[in-house]
Amino acid sequence: MIVVMKMGASDAEIEGVVSRIRELGFSPHLSRGEERTIVGVVGDDRRVAEEGMFEALPGVAECVRILKPFKLAARDFVAGRTVVTVGVGSGAVKIGDKNIVVAAGPCAVESWEQVEEVAVAAKACGARLLRGGAFKPRTSPYSFQGLGEEGLKLLARAREETGLPIVTEVMTPEAVPLVESYADCLQIGARNMQNFHLLQACGKSSKPVLLKRGLSATLEELLMAAEYILSSGNRNVILCERGMRTFERATRNTLDLSAVAVLKEWSHLPVMVDPSHGTGQRSLVAPMARAAIACGADGLIIEVHPQPERALSDGPQSLTPAMLAETMREVGAIARAVGRA
Amino acid sequence: MIVVMKMGASDAEIEGVVSRIRELGFSPHLSRGEERTIVGVVGDDRRVAEEGMFEALPGVAECVRILKPFKLAARDFVAGRTVVTVGVGSGAVKIGDKNIVVAAGPCAVESWEQVEEVAVAAKACGARLLRGGAFKPRTSPYSFQGLGEEGLKLLARAREETGLPIVTEVMTPEAVPLVESYADCLQIGARNMQNFHLLQACGKSSKPVLLKRGLSATLEELLMAAEYILSSGNRNVILCERGMRTFERATRNTLDLSAVAVLKEWSHLPVMVDPSHGTGQRSLVAPMARAAIACGADGLIIEVHPQPERALSDGPQSLTPAMLAETMREVGAIARAVGRA
Amino acid sequence: MIVVMKMGASDAEIEGVVSRIRELGFSPHLSRGEERTIVGVVGDDRRVAEEGMFEALPGVAECVRILKPFKLAARDFVAGRTVVTVGVGSGAVKIGDKNIVVAAGPCAVESWEQVEEVAVAAKACGARLLRGGAFKPRTSPYSFQGLGEEGLKLLARAREETGLPIVTEVMTPEAVPLVESYADCLQIGARNMQNFHLLQACGKSSKPVLLKRGLSATLEELLMAAEYILSSGNRNVILCERGMRTFERATRNTLDLSAVAVLKEWSHLPVMVDPSHGTGQRSLVAPMARAAIACGADGLIIEVHPQPERALSDGPQSLTPAMLAETMREVGAIARAVGRA
Amino acid sequence: MIVVMKMGASDAEIEGVVSRIRELGFSPHLSRGEERTIVGVVGDDRRVAEEGMFEALPGVAECVRILKPFKLAARDFVAGRTVVTVGVGSGAVKIGDKNIVVAAGPCAVESWEQVEEVAVAAKACGARLLRGGAFKPRTSPYSFQGLGEEGLKLLARAREETGLPIVTEVMTPEAVPLVESYADCLQIGARNMQNFHLLQACGKSSKPVLLKRGLSATLEELLMAAEYILSSGNRNVILCERGMRTFERATRNTLDLSAVAVLKEWSHLPVMVDPSHGTGQRSLVAPMARAAIACGADGLIIEVHPQPERALSDGPQSLTPAMLAETMREVGAIARAVGRA
Repeated sequence: MIVVMKMGASDAEIEGVVSRIRELGFSPHLSRGEERTIVGVVGDDRRVAEEGMFEALPGVAECVRILKPFKLAARDFVAGRTVVTVGVGSGAVKIGDKNIVVAAGPCAVESWEQVEEVAVAAKACGARLLRGGAFKPRTSPYSFQGLGEEGLKLLARAREETGLPIVTEVMTPEAVPLVESYADCLQIGARNMQNFHLLQACGKSSKPVLLKRGLSATLEELLMAAEYILSSGNRNVILCERGMRTFERATRNTLDLSAVAVLKEWSHLPVMVDPSHGTGQRSLVAPMARAAIACGADGLIIEVHPQPERALSDGPQSLTPAMLAETMREVGAIARAVGRA
Repeated sequence: MIVVMKMGASDAEIEGVVSRIRELGFSPHLSRGEERTIVGVVGDDRRVAEEGMFEALPGVAECVRILKPFKLAARDFVAGRTVVTVGVGSGAVKIGDKNIVVAAGPCAVESWEQVEEVAVAAKACGARLLRGGAFKPRTSPYSFQGLGEEGLKLLARAREETGLPIVTEVMTPEAVPLVESYADCLQIGARNMQNFHLLQACGKSSKPVLLKRGLSATLEELLMAAEYILSSGNRNVILCERGMRTFERATRNTLDLSAVAVLKEWSHLPVMVDPSHGTGQRSLVAPMARAAIACGADGLIIEVHPQPERALSDGPQSLTPAMLAETMREVGAIARAVGRA
Repeated sequence: MIVVMKMGASDAEIEGVVSRIRELGFSPHLSRGEERTIVGVVGDDRRVAEEGMFEALPGVAECVRILKPFKLAARDFVAGRTVVTVGVGSGAVKIGDKNIVVAAGPCAVESWEQVEEVAVAAKACGARLLRGGAFKPRTSPYSFQGLGEEGLKLLARAREETGLPIVTEVMTPEAVPLVESYADCLQIGARNMQNFHLLQACGKSSKPVLLKRGLSATLEELLMAAEYILSSGNRNVILCERGMRTFERATRNTLDLSAVAVLKEWSHLPVMVDPSHGTGQRSLVAPMARAAIACGADGLIIEVHPQPERALSDGPQSLTPAMLAETMREVGAIARAVGRA
Repeated sequence: MIVVMKMGASDAEIEGVVSRIRELGFSPHLSRGEERTIVGVVGDDRRVAEEGMFEALPGVAECVRILKPFKLAARDFVAGRTVVTVGVGSGAVKIGDKNIVVAAGPCAVESWEQVEEVAVAAKACGARLLRGGAFKPRTSPYSFQGLGEEGLKLLARAREETGLPIVTEVMTPEAVPLVESYADCLQIGARNMQNFHLLQACGKSSKPVLLKRGLSATLEELLMAAEYILSSGNRNVILCERGMRTFERATRNTLDLSAVAVLKEWSHLPVMVDPSHGTGQRSLVAPMARAAIACGADGLIIEVHPQPERALSDGPQSLTPAMLAETMREVGAIARAVGRA
């Protein structure tokens, strides 16, 4: 961290900063410029970075953090890249290696017929994971909130039938034991990206976690959320870009694909992209799925519904099984063009 | 809701929309324009508004919602305005009537000495509520996470000493019973504004709820979050603007004061403003506190620390007790200028 | 347009809206719902859409535009897609057909040696256009502002040597004659996207126009800016996505690739992408260039400098000629995967 | 400026940075931390700050600017605060001293009757300046574009009748001579805030300039735009906050009132606020006008129209003369509460 003093800061103020640095166990490094004095804080200052301890000292203009605040999530924390395994036995799927993984399924689990039809179609197209929501975060209390445990049971039954491991959302710390008893991968939704108790609860789970970026979360905050999970003991975290909130109204969210490339530079964790929520429109899912793979994503999460116009949630952005098949073909061509499978 | 058909939509597509409207229990109202046909949905369509059921039908270009999706939070749901009472007996404080209410206190409860000093000073300046965090949502897992129940006990002790009712944050549904056993008002933080299970749990509490706007939440979403609490049975909700996330870097967040005026038009609920988080800088707290009252806010939440430069959280935006006293004087002058006390 | 009346709007207020609609030459279409009355405006209301004439009438809650406000830029205005030809004779380049076109060159023209080296390298890699700034919009008045006409001469000399048509920015209406006397394509920069006199001046030019999206322009506004050029008589407009301003700080701008897919749906105009400004970082240019082509862009604009660390502008996002060559190879593989060349 | 080296940067890379710093005429100041080396650039580095010269060097992770890039606009450039005088003789108005100044008038000048009615009413209410647009930047080429010079003449005639100095927008460098021959103050609109040639042309005018913040301009960029005017020779610049573009849809723009307080800290220039464009809704103008004065603005710009529902531009946000009178009374009370007149 670098502490920038105000112009004309007094010697006493500079000394105050220097002694505070020492008090906290770091070494100060003074540098007097023409207009300003700056004081470097030498040492691993991640723990004090968020606390704003220096900004509040007299004579301080601003503090500039030099180290990224995440550590376990950082690129150089591990040699190579993390590959996360979802599911067990012969159906296990690896995310983060050469193969592109597609998780497909309905936004919300509605009935056995719906889940079965989608799961069978998804498998036939080459999807490797089944996604579906049993607990649904909804903006309105009057909207369909999901089938709850009944939905989890339907997903498990679809897994038995198709062999596809299942990814499903968990919304509260106390629901983690229930959800992990059915799911192969716990999803933390965008609205819960900074639900810190939930992050910690998932961090104690033995199941991998798919962590979605919050609507207005910076990439640094996404990695700090991952850090909560990692530092609670769970090293199997998959990051997921799903669109950010901006002024643009042509799309539901603005899918930030540069996030994929940045996260690959900053972190060793695998990165998936959700072009369904990222755009909110069925016609944009295929182009953005292709683009995501082109810039290095390890996988995709795509909403599919046998009859999107009857979906209880997210119909406008759901593909039909036939559209999924076509999208998978297009994505496959891109994957090969970037040397993946 | 109005369903706008694509240019050149076929009669069969229009008929599909019409029959779906009838199937859902509404009346269709057809209107053929020069370029487009539009179909009105007559009836209370709030429940289907979020579900996107019509957008997914063939031939549909877009759906335009006409009714606001909130109902219990809406201005015309009650006669007059809601006044929320925090605390009991002689120390009870009314929020939403003629009097401006200031809640002051430390970001995080750190020690008895700290809480006591701030509480006594806050009371002396005219603050009517004591705020302080025992459970702290922190971006970094390595930052101070709050004293937990011990912090709640210190707050309760300060209430005994000063008579100030206390406002404190609750972060998970399962912590509601513990927190409400100490607090006079439950705070739901910005990051939890769409933690729907928490909203519902607070909706079942007998204590009033201070609901902070999420970092990138629209005002409509804020009122939908309030709707979760209201529809769970708790009618004592205070809304709080605390700054939104934008591209501007001069301030920690962009305090959206027009939110105050809009919320007063749209809803009957009282509105407070948090200029500390809204700006992130001590020098901006007083001007924005004045502005908030000038445009109609019912109260303020202000962070105060006896030694901001030693605060474990949010030091740069905390006022000293002396600064609070000066801010209170300035705010008082504005309150009188707008006919309040 | 649809005029939504306030709840409880009086008959006189409704009549006021109806007669205003008639007065402006449209037909009203009344629809009384349970809570609200809505009045449809039948006819081509593009011309009144921006003017807010109905919102200001008593009893009106809001107006909802149904037609997109652009007409000449709209997808269905022409059969097929517009292909823009840049340059003349054997060196002419078509943008918008099956071939992907890359425009490469320095951010700012600095010297003959610099331009020549880049132009020769760009051509060798397969770039089809030479880009370079002679007039530079700079945030700071103390930064290098470009070589002016001298820079245009250097670009023209490079065109003579390599045969590559040149694309260069024009910043004011009165500079259009000068710039078009050298350039093959006039670039309108992001900061000038709503410089309406400049749009009109370029609209009267015989040279094609590359129109960059403004930092916080919606796609609808981008197409309205194109509409200014088109309606002034110039039908050769190329749209360019170059990143939008958001809260994210990991990248200079947030490259909105879904814009490509949306613009292709809404308009017949070709779309290019600028991954250099869109990301601001050299290491992100290649992945985002691949992604842009994967989702349907017709071309790319890439900054190249022989010695980026000595560039007078945008060094951090400039590729070296060697990096350009590698990027071109990668982009070529993607182009083939999506059936282009 | 501080150059932060990548972890593990080699001695040769560090040496490269050091010698580049010396080559540019600055002194390097080396500081080796546990994980990183940082190199301070000692000297006035404003001129190289925008150019990104160091980021592009091998081994550099990032560059952190310490000095604000503006100089003439900076708070400490002058003793005291700048007071700008608009108009001449007895009608001259000072902006930036103890008195609050309100500029009122129609968005667009439409006719003599309209301008006269508004000007007379504005004066009667206590407004000190007449605003009105003769040249109108409009998103759509099909919207009313203003009366041009005829509009300027009407404004001048209204000045003769009422004595109110006039503020009006200029859109291109070449129109500056024409507009300044009529106007007392040149307005640069939000869309032109980074039209650098226009800034320079206004910088050579003898008339004061009202500079509006761009829709997505940071406060630093606003001050850099002011710096263009100031460094071209015109020291009479008034800054104007008029709302920024965000995700919130309840208001046309998000009025950033903390900008007022920040600009007062950073700069010596006076600051006005435009609550009409800042909100886009008539009912929000008065509350935000009060708030603007409460937080320290020196004046307001308010749109007024005798019949807002017939306005050719911005009717929904225009006040009637009666509403202006009421707003002026409310603003007066706030002004007195903050010790102004």
